[in-house]
Order: sequence, then structure tokens, then C-alpha cells
Amino acid sequence: MNYFIVVKVVGILLILEAAFMVPAQLIAVYYNQSDKIAFLVSILIIAAIGFLMTRVKTSNKKIRTKEGLAIVAFGWALSAALGALPLVISGSVPSYIDAFFETVSGLTTTGATILDDIEALPRGILFWRSFTHWIGGMGILVFTVALLPIFGVGGFQIFKAESPGPVADKIVPRIKDTAKILYITYISLTGIEIILLTFGGMSLYDAALHTFGTVGTGGFSTRNASIGAFDSTYIHLVITVFMIISGANFSLYFALYKGKWRDVVKNEELRLYLLIIFVSTLLIGTNLYFTFFDRGGILFRDAFFQVGSIITTTGYTTVNFDQWPTFSKNILFILMFIGGSAGSTSGGMKIIRVLVLLKLIKREVAKIFHPRAIVPIRIQSKPLSGDATASISSFVVLYLTVFIVGTILISLEDIGLESAASSVAVTLGNVGPGFGFVGPTRTYSEFSNFSKMVLSALMLIGRLELFTIIALLAPKYWRNEN
Amino acid sequence: MNYFIVVKVVGILLILEAAFMVPAQLIAVYYNQSDKIAFLVSILIIAAIGFLMTRVKTSNKKIRTKEGLAIVAFGWALSAALGALPLVISGSVPSYIDAFFETVSGLTTTGATILDDIEALPRGILFWRSFTHWIGGMGILVFTVALLPIFGVGGFQIFKAESPGPVADKIVPRIKDTAKILYITYISLTGIEIILLTFGGMSLYDAALHTFGTVGTGGFSTRNASIGAFDSTYIHLVITVFMIISGANFSLYFALYKGKWRDVVKNEELRLYLLIIFVSTLLIGTNLYFTFFDRGGILFRDAFFQVGSIITTTGYTTVNFDQWPTFSKNILFILMFIGGSAGSTSGGMKIIRVLVLLKLIKREVAKIFHPRAIVPIRIQSKPLSGDATASISSFVVLYLTVFIVGTILISLEDIGLESAASSVAVTLGNVGPGFGFVGPTRTYSEFSNFSKMVLSALMLIGRLELFTIIALLAPKYWRNEN
Repeated sequence: MNYFIVVKVVGILLILEAAFMVPAQLIAVYYNQSDKIAFLVSILIIAAIGFLMTRVKTSNKKIRTKEGLAIVAFGWALSAALGALPLVISGSVPSYIDAFFETVSGLTTTGATILDDIEALPRGILFWRSFTHWIGGMGILVFTVALLPIFGVGGFQIFKAESPGPVADKIVPRIKDTAKILYITYISLTGIEIILLTFGGMSLYDAALHTFGTVGTGGFSTRNASIGAFDSTYIHLVITVFMIISGANFSLYFALYKGKWRDVVKNEELRLYLLIIFVSTLLIGTNLYFTFFDRGGILFRDAFFQVGSIITTTGYTTVNFDQWPTFSKNILFILMFIGGSAGSTSGGMKIIRVLVLLKLIKREVAKIFHPRAIVPIRIQSKPLSGDATASISSFVVLYLTVFIVGTILISLEDIGLESAASSVAVTLGNVGPGFGFVGPTRTYSEFSNFSKMVLSALMLIGRLELFTIIALLAPKYWRNEN
Repeated sequence: MNYFIVVKVVGILLILEAAFMVPAQLIAVYYNQSDKIAFLVSILIIAAIGFLMTRVKTSNKKIRTKEGLAIVAFGWALSAALGALPLVISGSVPSYIDAFFETVSGLTTTGATILDDIEALPRGILFWRSFTHWIGGMGILVFTVALLPIFGVGGFQIFKAESPGPVADKIVPRIKDTAKILYITYISLTGIEIILLTFGGMSLYDAALHTFGTVGTGGFSTRNASIGAFDSTYIHLVITVFMIISGANFSLYFALYKGKWRDVVKNEELRLYLLIIFVSTLLIGTNLYFTFFDRGGILFRDAFFQVGSIITTTGYTTVNFDQWPTFSKNILFILMFIGGSAGSTSGGMKIIRVLVLLKLIKREVAKIFHPRAIVPIRIQSKPLSGDATASISSFVVLYLTVFIVGTILISLEDIGLESAASSVAVTLGNVGPGFGFVGPTRTYSEFSNFSKMVLSALMLIGRLELFTIIALLAPKYWRNEN
């Protein structure tokens, strides 16, 4: 491992983070609140650390897979560790572990909070908190769409098929091109949603912060009651639609822009994604209707909102879904695992992997009767290699393994199976609120520091597609990489 | 599909079932209880139906995969449907659906009961109920060890490697040989455990019935308090050890008999199986110790018993583990999914599959850094084909899919996520008791008839390694088989 280049690149990321803190600083100064000094101090500290790190001298500038993974993991973790500074310095979150948890939750676009009273916080802090979603969302798009296909982690080699394989000296320009398209799409969506929300009567401040939470599929709100604080069907629907848009594969928007409507309409992942949303909304809406018998339309609106929020792993809420009947909660619980599309800001296992797994079962049934037939798994008519399907299976098995290990660790707090399992599912899947102890009206503040660290680790592991972190924990493999 | 040969062979199975009912009839007559007429009538009905079915004329005696699967599935289901007759006719279980549930639970060696007062039942009925475990256990050994490797379902082709591949005209003699060895092992284990339990002060009747429940890894008891009714460390330990023996691969006992100690000691599945039992017992015992602080040795004994009972999917209980702390319950919950070894009477996903999956993750990590390396998964130093690993992945995905669908259906009863999920996990895994609504001190009697049918189906699907049933539901594939 070439540690020098890792330190150097992470240093650049920290300088960027300091720059991203400037808008929050301006807001704090504008409203002249207690946090204005906190941001100034934090920006100086982070920029200084970043600058010192970039000063590391190394003649070897080669970034191999191991350095790439280390930069991503170390970069995300250190950004969270230092991004927590304003929360602590301003006194908004007195405990550093709590502030770290909150910032990891922000940058991983999870949206799990330890804040029992969000509305008491200064405006700059709230802005920074929501802005971490937006930064994290952009980071994850570049990571999964531009970098992971090159590393070939967890089945992401599928994307390779869409563009010619990486040739050593062409990697950087291609990453730059892809990243540029993603930035433009992401920024455009952000702008449109802010405008639409202000049309619905939201202040510019609220509109911007909730848009960051939506397009980053994060879920931090400015209100204790989340989106439920805004009693407007228009606002609920705009946010639902934008959550769903943000949970779809961003490369589809580029195809749309290029006028390739057919490619979008025939996209198998998109179809399955929309089908799951439609069926889940229908099932939950009907279940709610037969349970509560009133406000038919409102119940379906709430069901649609919550399905969109959970499958895209945003985590906004309009009602306390922890009080819904078991059937509806169960469907939400499954959506927490499925997650949104690959190449989006959402977490979870991703629709594309679920699709491949379903095809794997179908093929297995066919093979029972035709054992000698060779039937490749096809996505968009293109056959997947055995390697890619094995990668996807491994990913899902690893996901469940991490879920199980996490649940065992969290269940050391005697909070019951449902609470323990759902707290792990929603942090690993970067969702946010879960059931019981971590239900929509509760926060993560009551967990022990040990559990908060475990859950923070789970958010990072889930966000970075598991193998990034797990691979770094297995030095015996990366030691031999050339 | 050659339905005639299916009907014919299932007819033979029913005649066998009628014969298996004779001991229960004799016990009913000996004790002169209300059930003696019930058995006589049932035996006559079942034998008559079986006889009529064997009278079907067909010139085509070829049994292909589809007929094989149909015989197994239809045979198990019809044996349960008719095996329920004595329970209904004797008045012991007035509802036919309840009696069907109880008999499916017996024949699939699940041990889930709808009986709120077991001790009130006549002795012949209790004998038949426990004997269905013993019959079912023997049936499943022959099915998984002798038949499945030939069908090549769900990764069971692994076993093929241990003996030369099937040659058309050699299938029957080889099945017969394998089956004979299994019978001898199974009957020997049964005899030894009965003797050991009577040494501990159990009556011959109780010893026999609990032995059926142990070697079949079923879990029906003669007492409402299950094994907890016998206040003897000796009896608890004998049953624990025999549950663990019955959850190991039976081909190991044949290897032992042949003096191949090395093969047994070096068996990877056995090692992982024992390791999981050891670690789980240690974790749960320690967790119980720090929760209750008293009776140190007894707590570890209870932990050992419960771990052995759940991982082998037997389901006997000595204490109400539903009142254990979340951490311990969580470990048990995971064991419900893992299950025992392949080639044993236990259910669940099976240790060998878990082993392959863990190796799949390990390989995936290695491949991140060495993308061009070709690393086969090895079990006992033998490389597994890509097909076999894909089959195993598919099995696990299908297992979880069935679990999810089952949980959704059961959660229509508003009993909470933990109860719904665990009732499905323990029926699909053929365990028996679960948590909450289906905890050790509760029964399945309060479920609706719809749920009872769903849970019965899950027991059959789980017992027959999923693909047997699922494949029969996909006629478009089997129609083309030659």
C-alpha cells in the first residue's frame, strides 16, 4: 500500500470539505447565531489538516485498487470525523460521539439522528447537517458510477458492459466525463426541486434543506415531525416523486437527455423498481384502508410517500409508520433491504442485484429438468458472466452476514429483536428511521456509545458497498497486489 | 408428466404408511383407550386408497426427474392428509385442518403443535404423533442422501462427487445400498438412545417417543413442558448429544464404521457445525450468566440444550427461551436459519451451504485485488464447479424469498414482526417453537385456518429442499423434459 498517495488525496478531499462548509458559515453570519465562530474555527482546522496532508511528498503517484479503496474509505471516515467539529464547537451536540454519528449519518445519506429536538438548533448547523447529505450523495454517485466499475467490486462490473473496458491511460478522462454528467444531472434536479417546493409555500431555506435530503436520499429534516410538519399534499407528492427520481439509475437521465427513450422504457432495473413501488403502495394502502377505514385517499398518499421514502432509503416520514399493522411494517422492512437502483444516491442491496438473484432462481428451476442446458443470466439481453453473478451472490450474502453480525452486537442492548434488527437494517441500508426503539418518533440518542460506533460503522460499510471496507480489513490479499 | 407412475408409487407409500400405523393401533388396544377404533378405521381407509392407487395400469415405468419430484411432494402431502385421520376420528383433534397441520408438522420433523394440552391425549395417538417424526426422518434421509444428488437440486450435486455419477441402470441398486446403510445407522441410533433414556429413569414409552423426536430432529414431546418436564441433567445431556448426532451428516457414521477416522475428523462441514454449536453455547451461556447471575452451570446446560435443539431444528425446550435477553434470542434466531448438516434429519439451509457461501465471500475479496485470478471454491480439497456454487447461492436466495413471502402472508395476522417472522422461520426451517406468539409456552392453535395452511405449506417446502415444490409449480419447464 502506498500510504503517501492515500494521505495526499484525502488531504485534497478535506480542503474540499472546508470549502463546502463556507455556505453554512455565511448563513450563520447572516442570522448572527451562536454557530458563526464554530464554523470559522472548523474551516480553519479542516483546511489546515488538509493542506498539511497534501504536502506529503511521494514520487510514486500510481493509484492501484488498494489505494483507491483506502482513499474512499479513509476519505469518507475522516470527512465525518472532522465534519462533526462545528456541531461540537457550537455546543449544538455536546458529545463528540453523537456529533460523529450525526455527521456519518449525513455524509452516508442515512438520515438517522441523535437529535431529540432538531428545531432548537441554529440555522447554520441545520444547513451544514442537511448539506452533508447533498455532498455525500454526489460523492456516492461518482464512487459507484465512475469508480466501482473499474475496481469491479460486488457485481458492479455489470456497468463495464455499457462502455469500453478501462484502458490504463484512459481511466482519468473517462471518470471526469462521467462525473461531469452526474454533477450536471444532480445539480439540475436540486434546482428544480427547490423551485417546486417554494411554489408549495415552503421558505427557500426549508426548500433547500429538504431538497438536499431528497436528492441525496438522506432524510434529515428541519422539523421534529419530518415532512409530516408540512400539511400539504402538494409538498408530499413533490418530495415523493423526487425521492423516486433520485433512487433511479442516474445514467438513465443522461440517456433521456440524449433522446434514447427506448433504452429508458425498456430498462429492466427501472421497470422492476417502479413495479415494486407500485405493488408495495397498493398493498400497504389497502392494508391501511382495511385497518383504519377512513381518509381513503390520504392513506394511499401516506403509503406512497413511505414506500418511496423507504425503498430509496431516504427515510423522510409523514406519519408514524411504526404504528401501522404488521403486514405494512413487514413490507417496509423488506424495502429497507432492497434499496434503490444502482447508480443512484440510495442505499440497500440495490434493485439490479435483486433482479439478478430472481433470474438465478428461475434458471435453477429450469436446470433441474434440463441439467445439461447452458443458460446465461441476461440483463438487457446481454449475458452476464458467471463471475458477475457470483459477485452479486457474494455481495448479498455479505450484506446479510454484516446484517446478522451487526444485529448480534446491537442486541447486547436488550431492546427486543425487532428494534435491534431494524436499527441495523436501516443503518446498513442508509435508510434512517426503523421500528420500535428507532421508530419515526424516536431518535438514536438513547443508544450506548458502543452501539453508536457500531451503527456508524454500519452506515459507512453499507454506503461504500461493503467490499470496499471488508477488503481493506483483509491485508493478506492486498499485500500481493502489484 | 407420467401421472400414472406417480399415482402408483404414491400408492405404495400409502400402504407403507398404513403398516407404520399398526404399532400405534397395538398400543391403543393394549391400553384400551378411545383411539383403538380410530386407528383400525384409518388403517383400513389408507390401505384401501393405497391399494386402489397401485392398481393403476401403465406400460411406461420410466421415472424421470419430474415424476421423481412429483412422487416425493405428492407422497409427503398425501401421507400427511391421510395420517391426520386417527387424530380426527378419535376426537383428539376435532378440526381437520388442525390435525393436518399436526401431521405435516410430524412427518416433516418440525414439531410445531396446535395442541394446547398434550398430556390429555390417548397413548396411541401420542405414539403415532411422535412416530411420524421417526418415519419422516427416515424418509428425508433417503430423499436427501440417495435421491437429491441424482436430481441435482439446490447444490446437492456436491454429494455426487463422493460416488461415481449416476448411470441410468445403476440408479436403483445404488439407492438401495445407500438407503440400507442409512436405515441401519438410524435404527441403531434409535435403539441406543432409548436404552440410555430408560437408564435415566424414563419409562420405555416416554423414552421411545422422545427418541423418535430426537433422531428425527422433530421435537414432539409427551409433556406440555417438553423436556423441561424431566428434571434430570443426565436426560437433558443425553438428548442434547443425540440431537447433535442426528444433525450431523449420516454418511460420517458410515465412514466411522469403516474405520475412516481421518475423513471424519477432517470433515469441514462437521467442524463448522461443532464450532457454531460451541461458540453459540458460550455466547448464550455467558449472556444468561450476566443477566441472571445464578445457577452458572445450569444456565450453560440450558444454553447447550437450546443451541443443540435449535441448530438441529429439533425444537425441544427445557426453559422458556422467549424470556431470554435479546442477544441470546438473536443467536437462536440465526441458528433457526442455518440448520444442521446436509444428509441429516435436520432442516434449515444446512451448514454445508453456509460454508460454501462464506468461502464465496472470501474469494470475492481476493478477486478485488487479483481480478484475473481463477480461484475455485474447494470443499474437502475438491473444487466445486461454478454450477454448484450458483445452485447453492440460488438455494439460499430462494430460501430467503420464501421466508419473506411467508412472513408477508402470516403478518396479515396482526401479531407483530418478531412473531410473524419467527413463526415462518421455524416452520420453513422445520424447527417448531419460535418467539412471541409461537414461543415455547405457546402453540399454533390460535392462528387462522389460512395461516395454518400457509405454515403447513412452508413446512413441506422447507423439508423438501424448496426446489422440489417450486419446480413442480413451474410446468413450463418440466413439460419439455424427455
